Amino acid sequence: MPEVCLRKIQSHFIGGAQRCVQDLPIQHREMVRNGGQRALDMNGSYAVGQMYAMEYRLARPRSALPVLLWHGGGMTGAQWESTPDGREGWLWRLLQAGHDVVVCDAVERGRAGWAMFPEIYAEAPVFRSAQEAWRLFRIGHAAPGGYGAPFAGQRFPSQCFDELVKQMVPRWIGHEAMAAAAYDALLQRFGPCVVMGHSQGGGFAAHAACRQPQLVRAVIGIEPTGMPAPHAGPQPAAAIAHLAVWGDHFEHSPQWQTYRAQTDAYWQGLARAGGRADVLDLPAAGLRGNSHFCMLDTNGDEVLQRVLDWLKDSTQ
Amino acid sequence: MPEVCLRKIQSHFIGGAQRCVQDLPIQHREMVRNGGQRALDMNGSYAVGQMYAMEYRLARPRSALPVLLWHGGGMTGAQWESTPDGREGWLWRLLQAGHDVVVCDAVERGRAGWAMFPEIYAEAPVFRSAQEAWRLFRIGHAAPGGYGAPFAGQRFPSQCFDELVKQMVPRWIGHEAMAAAAYDALLQRFGPCVVMGHSQGGGFAAHAACRQPQLVRAVIGIEPTGMPAPHAGPQPAAAIAHLAVWGDHFEHSPQWQTYRAQTDAYWQGLARAGGRADVLDLPAAGLRGNSHFCMLDTNGDEVLQRVLDWLKDSTQ
Repeated sequence: MPEVCLRKIQSHFIGGAQRCVQDLPIQHREMVRNGGQRALDMNGSYAVGQMYAMEYRLARPRSALPVLLWHGGGMTGAQWESTPDGREGWLWRLLQAGHDVVVCDAVERGRAGWAMFPEIYAEAPVFRSAQEAWRLFRIGHAAPGGYGAPFAGQRFPSQCFDELVKQMVPRWIGHEAMAAAAYDALLQRFGPCVVMGHSQGGGFAAHAACRQPQLVRAVIGIEPTGMPAPHAGPQPAAAIAHLAVWGDHFEHSPQWQTYRAQTDAYWQGLARAGGRADVLDLPAAGLRGNSHFCMLDTNGDEVLQRVLDWLKDSTQ
Repeated sequence: MPEVCLRKIQSHFIGGAQRCVQDLPIQHREMVRNGGQRALDMNGSYAVGQMYAMEYRLARPRSALPVLLWHGGGMTGAQWESTPDGREGWLWRLLQAGHDVVVCDAVERGRAGWAMFPEIYAEAPVFRSAQEAWRLFRIGHAAPGGYGAPFAGQRFPSQCFDELVKQMVPRWIGHEAMAAAAYDALLQRFGPCVVMGHSQGGGFAAHAACRQPQLVRAVIGIEPTGMPAPHAGPQPAAAIAHLAVWGDHFEHSPQWQTYRAQTDAYWQGLARAGGRADVLDLPAAGLRGNSHFCMLDTNGDEVLQRVLDWLKDSTQ
């Protein structure tokens, strides 16, 4: 396990603006243990719309392109840092492979923080239960009140599923424009770059590549969702190499068949415009049994190697 | 700026348990952009009470003791990773100094995630406005609706204060027992260790050292708050070296004089029991002008060097 030598580890808060809240009642609370009550006046200004980015710079990178890691919906950047069964995550593998890496928490997720509702955010967040995650992440069969049997040949370490559940965070619906503005600011800071996005993060990556094609050299969507509708005219991101990576067990999920068709349509539009829009269908490529989270699956290192091979080929 | 060679970067979710929520209404929402509405059933199980810990292991540590970094109230571990004016944070400096480091997000903060209320958490969180932070962090004078003048000689990069505001996250009052349980699990995983806690995190560190003295070699409280009341009988943490670090500008804050007196009383109890309970009063030591966040101040590297000198002396 070769060591990784870095010249910088530093986080950043990117984008956002301040918003003012007024007319909240003054509370009196003990804010410090044994410290006595004090007035708690929450009126004032708050930072809203910023995202978090943790920058890892190698002492001797072997690629000029940093890889920006964008997590999926209801997750944070932690999903790239380790696996539920305790192996190092793709962050470490990418550093070992010679890439600078930026691990991101989108607006409102994880260290990016979130703002009060309904005073700043219009509505309450939504939450994903462990049982919904088991089903939506294509780990196994549904069962009332718990987890059903894992799918046959499942590569996700399903006995450790509850470790993944600990990573799940609330999210808001309808904040796409706010998230996109922060991602744009992020690209302006770290581009040109490769964006690797998982699930919702893959869709964010494809949209961002359309808005700022000069700052993105490749979009790697790991089971990406929420793709742009195929453009009628010119494809703004057609000059950027795109890769979609798909796991297994789609036959169990009509929902995922629908989401995947969205990406297929957008990829076809890129290809028609002369772009490179590739698909790594893992079962077809001989890697069977992957879940929605191939970066956490027991064969995750093999998957990443295929992705890195593609990246090398497509950005040279 | 010497490079840092690591053998591991890996995060962990520590502690917690699952809690079940039922009888929530089913919503129908578009969860994926352009993906059509689907049923959103939030009933089910949720992880509650876990914390987040990012582990950095040096290839060749020069100390056997990892340093665990515990942030203050309303903050996350990001406060150790960079400064508002863009310098590397104490995470990087500690790695350069030869310590393994574990950067933590307490229960309910940052990547640790948070649970719905009132179904799981009993009540709503509290939020800290930028203006309250300016005052409570002892940056400068209060002014209606904004920031007043920075205190004379202020070492916090006050022109970049809004960058710190971006890091602030909601917090809950009354979750001390839940946070403590996760910190205990953390110590069992990473101890024996040094715990460096800022503000609320410093109080958490002192309490944790009482509960698990065999796993803590030193407690470093950076402007710590919420200390244990002085014990009547034996001091459970008296065998552990304690250091409190205080900045400047206390004359402007009766609140901070009160909080500091709490630590003074606890430190005196440790000393009476024969323990080592030291104080690094920065102005008295010739370092003037520090705010509540000396790790972010422009002389933060000098402050850290004093702390490391103490650590070397007290743990040998």
